[in-house]
Amino acid sequence: MTASDSQRAVPGCGTPENEELILHPIGRVENGLSISTPRATLKETVSKIVLKPELAPGLDGLEAESRMLVVFHFHLAEESELHQHPRGDPSRPRRGVFALRGPRRPNPIGVTEVELLEIRENVLLVRGLDAVDGTPVLDLKPA
Amino acid sequence: MTASDSQRAVPGCGTPENEELILHPIGRVENGLSISTPRATLKETVSKIVLKPELAPGLDGLEAESRMLVVFHFHLAEESELHQHPRGDPSRPRRGVFALRGPRRPNPIGVTEVELLEIRENVLLVRGLDAVDGTPVLDLKPA
Repeated sequence: MTASDSQRAVPGCGTPENEELILHPIGRVENGLSISTPRATLKETVSKIVLKPELAPGLDGLEAESRMLVVFHFHLAEESELHQHPRGDPSRPRRGVFALRGPRRPNPIGVTEVELLEIRENVLLVRGLDAVDGTPVLDLKPA
Repeated sequence: MTASDSQRAVPGCGTPENEELILHPIGRVENGLSISTPRATLKETVSKIVLKPELAPGLDGLEAESRMLVVFHFHLAEESELHQHPRGDPSRPRRGVFALRGPRRPNPIGVTEVELLEIRENVLLVRGLDAVDGTPVLDLKPA
């Protein structure tokens, strides 16, 4: 590693053995849906992403009717297991957690590509976000 | 919110005001490249992702010659700004951070889709990962 100390991201980084990264939500999902909502319904629903108002300038240059990645915290996820039944369906053989996209992961982060429909100040309307009401949003990126 | 307490991910979650998520790397990138390496070179390079050995069973079911998402920590990133020049090029007009994919973000997380070439126990060979040597890897998902 040749980078100078000034280039290191100090917050949240410890020694390699106990290294950690501390993240804070930039906003939250509002769509009235719960963990019992069928996945197909989640994907069809128009969700709001409500950013912290002070972050709204960070949306400048994002265009409506484009594709966007939403990175979020699976905040209701139970503890990870290395082998899991896909979609929790016991009739399907277990697979490794990294071959699945479900929420019970070593780091409970979800990444979904959505359709960005509209931007109203600090609120984004998106379709295709498979996240329930109240989900903490961690990042947005152009797809 | 109707979920029972047992469904909440307690670790790292505080009150809504100071809510935080604490993540730990699952492995690290090895490719000998630095932040001065041209981006085009990064994208062409075959990188190793070395997982913690105890997580190797989580790879079961991932297939070589497939596409995979790599979620990683931009561990060398300087502090975020809401408006930035794309690629740090002052000749290009500033845009909002959420309309860019660069490393200086409120939560310094990168997401890149790569080509998974080969899996050898806890080591993956991938092409297309725009991350430097030593980058902490947070998650892997099928693309």
